Amino acid sequence: RSRSLPGTPISHTLKHFPINLRTSMDGKYKEIAEELFTRSLTESEMRTAPYEFPEDSPIEQLEERRQRLERQISQDIKFMNELGGVDRTDDGWMKERVLPMEREYQRVSISGEEKCGVPFTDLVDAAKCVVKALFIREKYIALSIQNFCKTTARELGELGEKPLDLRIYEEIPETPVDADAPVHPPVSETHPYENQDTKNMPADTGYSCKMVDGVMHVYTKKSPMEKSTELDLPYPDLKEYIADMNVMMALIINGPVKSFCYRRLQYLSSKFQMHILLNEMKELAAQKKVPHRDFYNIRKVDTHIHASSCMNQKHLLRFIKRAMKKYPGEIVHMEHGRGQTLMEVFESMNLTAFDLSVDTLDMHADRNTFHRFDKFNAKYNPIGESILREIFIKTDNHIEGKYFGHMIKEVMADLEESKYQNVELRLSIYGRSRDEWDKLAQWAVKHQVYSDNVRWLIQVPRLFDVYRTKKQLANFQEMMENIFMPLFEVTINPRSHPELHLFLQHVVGFDSVDDESKPEHHIFNMDSPLPADWTEEDNPPYSYYLYYTYANMAVLNHLRRRGFHTFVLRPHCGEAGPVHHLVSGFMLSENISHGLLLRKAPVLQYLYYLAQIGIAMSPLSNNSLFLSYHRNPLPEYLSRGLMVSLSTDDPLQFHFTKEPLMEEYSIATQVWKLSSCDMCELARNSVLMSGFSHKAKSYWLGPKYSKEGPESNDIRRTNVPDIRVAYRSETLLEELNLITHAVRTKELDNIDEEDTLSMAPIGAEGR
Amino acid sequence: RSRSLPGTPISHTLKHFPINLRTSMDGKYKEIAEELFTRSLTESEMRTAPYEFPEDSPIEQLEERRQRLERQISQDIKFMNELGGVDRTDDGWMKERVLPMEREYQRVSISGEEKCGVPFTDLVDAAKCVVKALFIREKYIALSIQNFCKTTARELGELGEKPLDLRIYEEIPETPVDADAPVHPPVSETHPYENQDTKNMPADTGYSCKMVDGVMHVYTKKSPMEKSTELDLPYPDLKEYIADMNVMMALIINGPVKSFCYRRLQYLSSKFQMHILLNEMKELAAQKKVPHRDFYNIRKVDTHIHASSCMNQKHLLRFIKRAMKKYPGEIVHMEHGRGQTLMEVFESMNLTAFDLSVDTLDMHADRNTFHRFDKFNAKYNPIGESILREIFIKTDNHIEGKYFGHMIKEVMADLEESKYQNVELRLSIYGRSRDEWDKLAQWAVKHQVYSDNVRWLIQVPRLFDVYRTKKQLANFQEMMENIFMPLFEVTINPRSHPELHLFLQHVVGFDSVDDESKPEHHIFNMDSPLPADWTEEDNPPYSYYLYYTYANMAVLNHLRRRGFHTFVLRPHCGEAGPVHHLVSGFMLSENISHGLLLRKAPVLQYLYYLAQIGIAMSPLSNNSLFLSYHRNPLPEYLSRGLMVSLSTDDPLQFHFTKEPLMEEYSIATQVWKLSSCDMCELARNSVLMSGFSHKAKSYWLGPKYSKEGPESNDIRRTNVPDIRVAYRSETLLEELNLITHAVRTKELDNIDEEDTLSMAPIGAEGR
Repeated sequence: RSRSLPGTPISHTLKHFPINLRTSMDGKYKEIAEELFTRSLTESEMRTAPYEFPEDSPIEQLEERRQRLERQISQDIKFMNELGGVDRTDDGWMKERVLPMEREYQRVSISGEEKCGVPFTDLVDAAKCVVKALFIREKYIALSIQNFCKTTARELGELGEKPLDLRIYEEIPETPVDADAPVHPPVSETHPYENQDTKNMPADTGYSCKMVDGVMHVYTKKSPMEKSTELDLPYPDLKEYIADMNVMMALIINGPVKSFCYRRLQYLSSKFQMHILLNEMKELAAQKKVPHRDFYNIRKVDTHIHASSCMNQKHLLRFIKRAMKKYPGEIVHMEHGRGQTLMEVFESMNLTAFDLSVDTLDMHADRNTFHRFDKFNAKYNPIGESILREIFIKTDNHIEGKYFGHMIKEVMADLEESKYQNVELRLSIYGRSRDEWDKLAQWAVKHQVYSDNVRWLIQVPRLFDVYRTKKQLANFQEMMENIFMPLFEVTINPRSHPELHLFLQHVVGFDSVDDESKPEHHIFNMDSPLPADWTEEDNPPYSYYLYYTYANMAVLNHLRRRGFHTFVLRPHCGEAGPVHHLVSGFMLSENISHGLLLRKAPVLQYLYYLAQIGIAMSPLSNNSLFLSYHRNPLPEYLSRGLMVSLSTDDPLQFHFTKEPLMEEYSIATQVWKLSSCDMCELARNSVLMSGFSHKAKSYWLGPKYSKEGPESNDIRRTNVPDIRVAYRSETLLEELNLITHAVRTKELDNIDEEDTLSMAPIGAEGR
Repeated sequence: RSRSLPGTPISHTLKHFPINLRTSMDGKYKEIAEELFTRSLTESEMRTAPYEFPEDSPIEQLEERRQRLERQISQDIKFMNELGGVDRTDDGWMKERVLPMEREYQRVSISGEEKCGVPFTDLVDAAKCVVKALFIREKYIALSIQNFCKTTARELGELGEKPLDLRIYEEIPETPVDADAPVHPPVSETHPYENQDTKNMPADTGYSCKMVDGVMHVYTKKSPMEKSTELDLPYPDLKEYIADMNVMMALIINGPVKSFCYRRLQYLSSKFQMHILLNEMKELAAQKKVPHRDFYNIRKVDTHIHASSCMNQKHLLRFIKRAMKKYPGEIVHMEHGRGQTLMEVFESMNLTAFDLSVDTLDMHADRNTFHRFDKFNAKYNPIGESILREIFIKTDNHIEGKYFGHMIKEVMADLEESKYQNVELRLSIYGRSRDEWDKLAQWAVKHQVYSDNVRWLIQVPRLFDVYRTKKQLANFQEMMENIFMPLFEVTINPRSHPELHLFLQHVVGFDSVDDESKPEHHIFNMDSPLPADWTEEDNPPYSYYLYYTYANMAVLNHLRRRGFHTFVLRPHCGEAGPVHHLVSGFMLSENISHGLLLRKAPVLQYLYYLAQIGIAMSPLSNNSLFLSYHRNPLPEYLSRGLMVSLSTDDPLQFHFTKEPLMEEYSIATQVWKLSSCDMCELARNSVLMSGFSHKAKSYWLGPKYSKEGPESNDIRRTNVPDIRVAYRSETLLEELNLITHAVRTKELDNIDEEDTLSMAPIGAEGR
């Protein structure tokens, strides 16, 4: 029965349409529809049958029982171990508790003769190449006093006499951090920048230094510089570096070696997949059993983030607006000799505080920056105005970086409030003039820009060509001198640059930055001009920059063993451009940022795995610049066991929320369906590869974090199940054994092996 | 020159390896390496050549000039229009400003006879089917006093006499909101729940009501129920609904119609792509010209979010811990007759406040919930304990939903602080007993759970089978009575349920929820038992639920025209399961949630486009349950101009940050590379399809928001360029004209068209 609205004869309109719409289907509708319905019935039956559960035991009850049981078991163990009663420290920390079950898991093992699926001779040839490459890296890392993977070092060591002075592999001295220490280290009571009294600084050594062929040399006397007085600070010389690089280049394109490494990487992937299928539930259970700890309250370090864009857009915008209200009359800029107030600057741009928006700011990477690093760089200018960049996000400007300092301190405050998030901010040293370091240090000290949650990395943009064209530099050696001379001076005599001495205590190392996809017009070989002779306007190639940075850092580190901490090299590497950047990175740096191109270089990827080189990846950054999100290799690297972490790179340009690092983790987890265990492993990796102190890491990860295998893990701090850590270390060990074993056997039956190693046609390289 | 570490003869180890690693490559390294370097040179040249810029005009300067120019132009216009001086209201709002240029853009137009690329007869047949379908929807929407797309209604109207009483299309009465009103509506001074004096409530009408064949009927007398006294409240009867549904089913699988719609959708995609290529920069420029406004400070409504999971995990965890500290002794639960304190509940689970973590909470969807809606539902139980769900996230429990009320109010406070974010929270009415509404309303009123940023939707879980099995219901009609009787009573006499009367003022409509992929064991046709006779334990099919909910709502809405606002139907629809759910949705509901399966039903997708039916999509939710993120059709729908918005569905289960809605937008933007304009369009859509008041929308989107075309848009509020709005409305109009034109021409030359419309083989349906 249908009824009509008061007014219109609705019964009519309901029956017919106002216009003839008859079709041949009229009258057949019922049949067609019913047939469809029936089909959809059967389909849905089929589709969802496997997920059906009997009415009488709905899954909720099953889940409830399961979880109760799990909890009961863990409780029993807890009481077993504690003989009743839970003893707590003030911050509610629980006393040591052994959870034996949680080390046991389903292991995958391969039996049979040719375990690795390639002919034995191929295996041996490949193994030799891999070992050779690892020895090369070990040499360079050892000589520069950076950290080399302990497990790998031990395995290599067994192949012959220890290749190098082992003091640098020594156990890191045990600190009094005990197993049940709280997860929060004691906060530094005095502000490190407050005590500026130079008298308390270490004394002058009376040394002097001079750069020769692009590398610093140190002499015991102030002058004259007789050879005799030169200090013995080792570094691998140019000839040796070139030779080793050539070896590496040849190895990574050798056909058999490539296919061997490719196979091993595939094997590692499927082994991990199997591990997950067999142990995922165990890992999850282990995480649930840990009281209080979850992904939100474990330490994370953002190991790759630039200070100039570490705040998000909304933050920068708010800050600029506040500044315009607070300091309208402040002279912030010199325009041909005459001072300009903040107000005047904005008036000259026809802008008011109210007008400003994130859109006008226009600092967010968008579709148009993809594969356009140049356009992208322009986005560093608020409202496209380089002057605003100068005023607000530079340390060296008319207001001595006051605004920038304040903004960074606001970011620091947020980090400290979040407790568990830490960052290693990149600050720039350009090498244009000798006083850059002092100005930077004065900025930090003057504005007290310091936080326990923050450490600094120094990024050196590869802009020699620009400065040279502008006649700001005469040759490349001048750039190196500008960068390193102050560091040697302050190491020789801290009182010569007191602020720098204080500032350096929070600097962990060096980064080398620029668009890697820029074409390089030179090959680095013995014919290349030495730094002092590099006077042309072209930029030296990537490996040239890296070698001289490395060499000077190595010498500096040996000098700093007088009692100062040493630096590490952590360049942008393999984000784009030629693959040989990753070779330089492999040889010279403790860890790298990006490493996207490893996905196209199986030999290098396998080597980065065996050496456990840290790779700080930023998929959101890549997504805006070089590689769409779903094609990013991070999940593949992670599954294979490479030492990867998640970092934000440029929150200002790539992130939307107030928690950029969480946003980065969230997207990765959502898009790649990572498990909570994967997320926690990534977070743990980020702490391991960071430059924070041994002491801090001992609190954050556990006192034994620097050991090998599951004993290095404290799930109560990391929320990473021992199972996962055990799987990683066992897998790495097996892989290393496969290699070293092959090399050794070959050694024994001492066959002449000329020409066993076939050359790959050049064309085979790349994919 | 290499030098040795004091101690070891380093010169040796640097030259040779500790073990024989000679290969046939020895001596050839240099050649191989150099060749590689050379090749990488040429490659990089090629790769990056197009992006090279002459040193003397780096892109930064170009960008700077461009932006300055743009800004200068907009400034000139501004001053032109304002004759100097910017007049501001207190909140810094700018007086009306015409920006003529910004309506002009590059248009794509098609010329030639057969504009749409299909044979004319096919076009006519298809057009008739499409028009017929649209008439069907128009009828049901009109009869239930829901909103039908104005443009589409007008175009259809021109095909014949207006099909229905048009009062419901009347211009929404103009409110005094003027063009320069602030973006923030005046805040409601008095708390709506404070004035509970029943005397101020509308009087009793003295009507009575009774459910007949599953639909409520209203009578002017309290009793006896003579037919004569029945009120004339129209609704489409069962026979008619079944018939129309059959028509729809036949249409959507008709071969020619399918390929026609498919082609049109393809056309819409590529047309949009062209629009973007031609106008992207213009759109961006327009956004930049708007002072102050950006994506962060435009209104967004989360149009699909469940109250029971609207807080994120960290929030729920913190709340539970706080509750355990604050109310340990409170009786929160009855365990066989005896009261249990909160403390006792947790003791019985061997848990302390300290132990709790997000992992133990275990409420986050993970890989194991994909395609496992059942497992997913179990995750609603904190720690897998249904009792905690009862205590903390239910409105009807021993503590009368106190904790849940407080938690929701905390969420509300955050929303109010964010200013621009609003939500429509789903609360459940189950239909198990008659007093559910009163209890729910009492909960809201007692705990004063209200916010200007929040409106309620009532979700009815399709659980008749469960209640029936437990003997809680005798037949389906009982369920309908439990759901609708109180609503009719309170509408007839508000004083009969005073709290409900107050609560309902913030309820916008009804949702129907459950796992759509569950198999349906019945076909809804004339042979289906009537609600009173539906006594079996099987669940009625989706369309059965939807029809009876719709019918009762329609009658109720007519009754409520006595001066109360009316309700709309906004069901979960097309998330999974059979495609005919989307047919019911198309016929009966104002807008839907999910609509994923439209991607497999071109005819329906095209119809949803032409009728501009709102689709609230939640890609993160889908990603955890039914469809991987990168395969989600949202970007395709958006490009074609479907009325889509972004919503979170279940922050508790799917999101990680404190800003779930921003997280949702962020991920969508990153993964699909949306432009700022796309984001703002999505946000505007979310407001348009939301149930917030006309007044609120006038403030948020602009006083003319309900008009058609660009005049409906106020970029100063929405940050959506007029260009985009113009493109959408022009495109929709062209599409509608194509259809109606075809139908009309055919009408005129009046040919007998039996059998022109060929039947598609059933097999052709689906893809």
